[in-house]
Formats: sequence, structure tokens, C-alpha cells
Amino acid sequence: MTQPTQRPLIFIGNDDGYQAGGLNFLANVARRYGDIFVAAPSTHQSGKSSALTVDTPIRATLVSDTPGATVYHVNGTPVDCIKLATDKLMPRLPDLVLSGINHGYNSGNSAIYSGTMGVAFEGTFLGVPSIGFSYGDYSASPDFSPCLPIVKRFIELALDGLLPTEVCYNINIPKCDEVKGIKAAKAAMGRWVEEYDSRIDPHGRTYHWLTGKYAPTDPDDESQDLYWLQRGFATVVPCRADQTAHDTIQALSRLI
Amino acid sequence: MTQPTQRPLIFIGNDDGYQAGGLNFLANVARRYGDIFVAAPSTHQSGKSSALTVDTPIRATLVSDTPGATVYHVNGTPVDCIKLATDKLMPRLPDLVLSGINHGYNSGNSAIYSGTMGVAFEGTFLGVPSIGFSYGDYSASPDFSPCLPIVKRFIELALDGLLPTEVCYNINIPKCDEVKGIKAAKAAMGRWVEEYDSRIDPHGRTYHWLTGKYAPTDPDDESQDLYWLQRGFATVVPCRADQTAHDTIQALSRLI
Repeated sequence: MTQPTQRPLIFIGNDDGYQAGGLNFLANVARRYGDIFVAAPSTHQSGKSSALTVDTPIRATLVSDTPGATVYHVNGTPVDCIKLATDKLMPRLPDLVLSGINHGYNSGNSAIYSGTMGVAFEGTFLGVPSIGFSYGDYSASPDFSPCLPIVKRFIELALDGLLPTEVCYNINIPKCDEVKGIKAAKAAMGRWVEEYDSRIDPHGRTYHWLTGKYAPTDPDDESQDLYWLQRGFATVVPCRADQTAHDTIQALSRLI
Repeated sequence: MTQPTQRPLIFIGNDDGYQAGGLNFLANVARRYGDIFVAAPSTHQSGKSSALTVDTPIRATLVSDTPGATVYHVNGTPVDCIKLATDKLMPRLPDLVLSGINHGYNSGNSAIYSGTMGVAFEGTFLGVPSIGFSYGDYSASPDFSPCLPIVKRFIELALDGLLPTEVCYNINIPKCDEVKGIKAAKAAMGRWVEEYDSRIDPHGRTYHWLTGKYAPTDPDDESQDLYWLQRGFATVVPCRADQTAHDTIQALSRLI
């Protein structure tokens, strides 16, 4: 007689906060595949990248704990959430790290600002398959159902041991009735321009809102994630936590 | 008769805040080479990575404005500072972006959490040579003078047009009387363990301080920044803002 196999333990985080629709959609899909452990920010934490809370302590609040599904919110950044969960809250390291589904794209080099991807990078430091999902719908209450086949496909690849864990995966899904397919691509590089909307407050002082337009600097070709998103395909960009530009080290050595 | 050459315009940011000793040291060195424009956080912003302020507006406060040296503080993250400065405050794009000198190392894969390097990545998006400096002295008032030859060397390389701008440069300098030399290296990869110190507050509730020990996962050899820092050498890691793991795209395409 064989022992019953332990169900996979799936960590789920995000940057839109524990009450976000995208998180709840992702958690509901993941529950079909294993026990889920959610640790998500208490409040909206968009644009937090891999930021950490250093100068103040953080707290975790249990939202619900039912068989196979534990949910906490944490008064910190997306990366604080996964760090605290894997160090203190979870019974063991997860078998899979999922992040999202983000309300809005993390495509091109905007990914560097993404708390969704910050969570996924932490997963790779743990040696665990790690996937960030983002959906290009900016409405108040998106219908995430077009994301379902892609989310399922990647959870299955990961749990089958087929996704290399040296990288994490940045998946963007376009808003549409039916996604045309999924393409592996590089992150298109660009520059944000006209970034701030400056205004005068009632007391005569200037303040600045972040806004901005994305100006691509890469050619718009089939190698780029933005190319495919604009054509109704989802994209997956494999991302490495190591920022070293290895191919430039030798020339730099000669220069210094 | 030739026109007098315009002095280089050097942007200077950091994550320790505009009053930090490391910033002032760096600004004083940079003034020998050009006009400086400082925009640094109003308060300590360690561990902020490439975080942006999205949900609230930000403000810039002029600290001083003398010929060849303008200083602002901004109530945002390190990346907010350079974005606002280059979009709204500076007379033109800088010729060079400097960040630091950080009080403490940004070596190994800790760099992913570094606001100092967040500023440098922004510089690469602008196409400008960009360098982050960090010094391994954690005392209250470090003497930054051992950093001087390395800071000068890299400012000169950059202003002479010898530093490729497709990457930015993460320079760490060990605390010592005299740095033995400088080595180009990769960022050593590791994992932070035992990350949180959990305590009970006077009201009986648990709170968690970020702390942790660094456990290297890379072999300790001459290719790694940590190897050289431990032996009294400064290190320079070329870093790419593009996180795409290009070498894995083909295999990923076949998988999906």
C-alpha cells in the first residue's frame, strides 16, 4: 500500500491587496490543484517592485483558515508578504509560487516596477517554480475568465516539474473574449516620457502626479512581448533575478 | 574661436536621504567634474528597489541653489526622485547619473532590493551612463575617503565616454584603509534565511522585524563579487535593466 500523496502547497501573493478580484480568481483556480496559502498586502501596493519594509515592523492578520486554504493579509509590500509567509507563517516551503492576477499589464520594461513580479523573484530565490500573472483589463471589476486556460496550463506545467526554476515567468494576458494563444518573448524595452502631471494645491504649492506615456525603444517585432499582446496573444517572459550583464564582464575587466 | 564647452550636468540621487554623508561625499567629488543636480529622498528609503509612488502625489523641496549645484529633496522613493528631476526639475537630461554612496553594501543578489541601484537603472532607461556606489561601512558617520579613487576613476571613465550605457554599474567598496583594487564580477546569488525576528507587543499582538542572514548559493570563486569584497577589493557588477532570460526563450517556446 502506498502512502496517500501530499497535496501540493501553493503560495499566492499579489500587489493589489488581499481583497482584489484577480487574487481571488487565481486562488480559486489554484485550489483545484493543491492546498493554498495566501499572504497578500493589506492595501493596494502597486508599483512596489521588490521593495522591503526595513524601518518598521510588520504584522500578519489571519483572514480565514479552512481545510486546504489559509488567507493572511500583511501590512507591508508584496515581497514582505512572501518573505514573512515562507519564514514564519507557512508549515513548509511551497511547491509553487503564484502572484496576481494583476489588474493591468506588467509588460515590457514596466516589469521592473512590478510588485507582482517582485513576489515571483522571491520564489526563484527559494528554488520554487514561480509565476506572475497580469491581465490587461483596467476596469473596476474585470471578468478574469479569459485568463483561465493559461493559468491552468502553467500551474499544470509547474506541478508536473516541467518549468525550470532558474527563472520565473512573467505572463501577460490581453483583454479579449478569447486569447489567441501564448508566445514566449522578451520584454520590450522602452522609456516612459511626460511622466508627471504637475498641479498647484489650494495653498499655492506644486505637487506632481505620476502618469506618463510609454515610448518603445525596441523594434516592434515578433521577439517582443508588446508585439503579441497588441495582436491578442498572451505572452510569457522568462525572467532572471540575477541582473548581472554577464556578457559585458570581460570587456569591463579590460577597461578598469 | 571655439565656444566654451558646456560643463557636464551630473544627476546625483541615493536612498539614504538628502542629508546622508555618502550623498554629500559623492556630490563634493562630482562638483570637480561638472554641475551637479541632487534630487534625493526627504527621508531614509532603504530597501525600496525600483518602487514608485503611484497613489499619492509627490512634492519637491528646494534645499539650495548655487552656481553649479542645485539640491532638492523629494517626498518619495529613490526612483521617484530621478523620474521627477529628469521630467520636471532639471534644465536638460544629465550627462551622467550617480547614486549613493550607499551606507552599506548592495552586493550579491541584495542588489534587487536596492534603491541605490533603482536610480541607476532609471539612468540606463535614459541612455545615460549610470553608476551606483555602496560602501561596506555600517557606522553612524562613516569616513568615505577610501572610496575617493574609485569614485573619481569611474566618473572619469563615464565622462570620457568609455562606459557602455546599455548597462549600469553596481560598485561596492569594502571598508578598509586602502582598497586593494577593483574587480569586474557577477553578483553572487544567495538566499536570505531566518529573516524575521518576531516579538510580542505590550498589547499581546505579534509583530515581525526584518533581519536575516545571507546564505550564498553560488560557489565562492573569483567570478563573484562577494569573493573579492571579502578580500579587500572593490567590485563592479554590470547590470542590465532587461530581466529577460534570453537564453531560455527557445526552450520555453517548445514547452508551451
